[in-house]
Amino acid sequence: MQTLVELVAKKRDGGRLSEDEIARIIRALSDGELADYQMAALLMAIFFRGMDDAETVALTRAMLHSGDVLDLSGVPGRKVDKHSTGGVGDKVSICLAPLVAACGVPVPMVSGRGLGHTGGTLDKLEAIPGFDVALDVDAFARIVREVGTCMIGQTARIAPADKRIYALRDVTATVESIPLIVASILSKKLAEGIDALVLDVKVGRGAFMKTLGDARALATALVRVGTAAGKRVSALLTDMSAPLGRTVGNAIETREAIEVLHGRGPGDLVACTLALGEEMLIAGGAAASAAEARPKLEAAIASGAAAEVLARMIAAQKGDPAVVQDAGRLPSAPVVVEVAAQDEGYVAAVDPLEIGLSAVALGAGRTRADQRVDPAVGIELAAVRGDRVDRGAPLARIHARRADDARAAADRVRAAFRLGPAPAEAPALVLERIEA
Amino acid sequence: MQTLVELVAKKRDGGRLSEDEIARIIRALSDGELADYQMAALLMAIFFRGMDDAETVALTRAMLHSGDVLDLSGVPGRKVDKHSTGGVGDKVSICLAPLVAACGVPVPMVSGRGLGHTGGTLDKLEAIPGFDVALDVDAFARIVREVGTCMIGQTARIAPADKRIYALRDVTATVESIPLIVASILSKKLAEGIDALVLDVKVGRGAFMKTLGDARALATALVRVGTAAGKRVSALLTDMSAPLGRTVGNAIETREAIEVLHGRGPGDLVACTLALGEEMLIAGGAAASAAEARPKLEAAIASGAAAEVLARMIAAQKGDPAVVQDAGRLPSAPVVVEVAAQDEGYVAAVDPLEIGLSAVALGAGRTRADQRVDPAVGIELAAVRGDRVDRGAPLARIHARRADDARAAADRVRAAFRLGPAPAEAPALVLERIEA
Repeated sequence: MQTLVELVAKKRDGGRLSEDEIARIIRALSDGELADYQMAALLMAIFFRGMDDAETVALTRAMLHSGDVLDLSGVPGRKVDKHSTGGVGDKVSICLAPLVAACGVPVPMVSGRGLGHTGGTLDKLEAIPGFDVALDVDAFARIVREVGTCMIGQTARIAPADKRIYALRDVTATVESIPLIVASILSKKLAEGIDALVLDVKVGRGAFMKTLGDARALATALVRVGTAAGKRVSALLTDMSAPLGRTVGNAIETREAIEVLHGRGPGDLVACTLALGEEMLIAGGAAASAAEARPKLEAAIASGAAAEVLARMIAAQKGDPAVVQDAGRLPSAPVVVEVAAQDEGYVAAVDPLEIGLSAVALGAGRTRADQRVDPAVGIELAAVRGDRVDRGAPLARIHARRADDARAAADRVRAAFRLGPAPAEAPALVLERIEA
Repeated sequence: MQTLVELVAKKRDGGRLSEDEIARIIRALSDGELADYQMAALLMAIFFRGMDDAETVALTRAMLHSGDVLDLSGVPGRKVDKHSTGGVGDKVSICLAPLVAACGVPVPMVSGRGLGHTGGTLDKLEAIPGFDVALDVDAFARIVREVGTCMIGQTARIAPADKRIYALRDVTATVESIPLIVASILSKKLAEGIDALVLDVKVGRGAFMKTLGDARALATALVRVGTAAGKRVSALLTDMSAPLGRTVGNAIETREAIEVLHGRGPGDLVACTLALGEEMLIAGGAAASAAEARPKLEAAIASGAAAEVLARMIAAQKGDPAVVQDAGRLPSAPVVVEVAAQDEGYVAAVDPLEIGLSAVALGAGRTRADQRVDPAVGIELAAVRGDRVDRGAPLARIHARRADDARAAADRVRAAFRLGPAPAEAPALVLERIEA
């Protein structure tokens, strides 16, 4: 049998690792036989040499089986989850999961936290007073069965090998590797006990993938590998050239997601939610086509059924369900400062990266994984792409903990807006759909 | 300032690390700011992307200055050392250093131990009863001054960053990288306080570099980088398609090296020693040319001066100097078994890798760095390339600790010999000479 170092050398030299070899590597990482520095060298070799689909499936499976795989067979129906590769203002999960559940498709969702300029669903949910994202797997399964959806964080028992590798990639410059990204996403999601997965691969300056080509490569790899691992997987490539919706922060994003379930969300956020909802209803067997899914989703919003599922989920997760009808119960920032246009014109672009980083600077996000976030702070966009603004009109409102923070953010937020002489055409929200 | 992870990413993406950046990385490795796993990822990135000469010089200097740099300014004359990239039966240092010192050129030598199929000078020296390779730097400098040469191991204070990186490379499949090899060799050698370095880059099946092209690439890089670091550096590419000399083991190799100083060594070993000696006398200013150096070396052998220097060095290093005149004082193996030819013919090849690995299996070498070696065991070649052997004639003698060990080695040693119908032509020992 080859030594572990020989397996690293095999990948380094462009060889293909077998399923057994990959399983052995992950086992050795878990039990300490393979040191972090050996894994780091292997990760860098994978960065350079890549992995084919069979290797990526094997890596996904090995990481998935490094921990507990949830058994949701007690929940009737096809379980469907959504995963977003992350963007600025992406609060879609919070309205989408209850909406899809209200249409009869169970949505077990293990979410993440924000890091860098992108926010995380867990941080947004925790803006709801009392909300608990650290449930055990039994409570998770029970709530999915009783309410239709539940949203928790990755426990220590879900794909622990992924957790360890993810932390290692972050500090060894091996994040940007498609097979490693694919295996990381899929191992966590497959551990949820789902039957199908819908992917929202964000494209643009506010996303991890900056170009359509890169996003397409990631999405097709996710779909191919997820399908090879036995799940129904499809992906939408969606625009992230501007923040999604009009809020970037935790409480203010949760509030906006709730608005969607009351039929009052901003157009792009509603469009994104409905497009992903269509995919999920089809994947869950609740609709045969997008045309059939759309009215069901709209009806679940109009009837209040989706909002009701959200309230029940919040209650089941020890949060204050009254926030669904009264967003005033969410934390709010003591300081709100308006950023005014210094010129007149049409908003041609709002840089999502700058807005995201400004929100992080206000305390809404993290630059290191061990930082706490402030639920109340963030940035509200008063004008978005295509809007006409007069000189002195509000571009944004900064929700801050202290006046100094708001002042520090104001110039940066203003600079994130580019004004032009004529109305700009916004790109389509859904750029492409990819399926197996 | 860029973070350390950004520096890893820079090299990963093919960027050039500045001298300051490389110094910062090595400092961060030394003081714990850069973790082993980050260094491992960087080493793999260097494996793929390489380093240019300026980067390699910077890495050499940073590793060199991670520890003590010996000050031999108190020793008159130009100090010259030799480094071999390692082969099977390579005991040249043991006869070469005293020989060159006897010609008036001081030779401070920090040597290594055997690992894998190649032996190490320290293990061979330690076959001499009492010999101490773990002297402190003051004793080292004193013996070089008083005797003309001293041979010790890499202390914890000589290039500790190299020691750490070398250990990491060994377990992360990042050994085979020319800039890393160059920086590792040169950082240790430059820490000795030398003025010039002669390199013996071995080529062939028994060497690290299997082809002339690979060996030439390594030798030119060593010469270029060493020259850029301010030293006089030249290299000989020498043949390692067969074991050097007629012995592979510790005590038996030391004995053979002593034979060279008595004018009785095997032809290839004498040729290698004299060729490197010529280089060293020129580098040390004791001769203007090879033609001028050769008779000086021969005279130092003929007069017994070289053997006398060896005896004095052994005495200064607490060993038994009487071994120089009486090799019977070296340890000997309790079992000596002859391996006979099963056919008749001319020895066409003796596989150095198989002979080296057989010697390791007998206990003469190591498969792991923490193993002990047996000084007495090894393999003595009774026939070498070009020799005519009759059926039943001895091919080799196995010196073993136990009869079982010898029996286990016999077939493997026999299989290492290839017989042919006609005399084989041996390649030249010195294949090429490379200088700045």
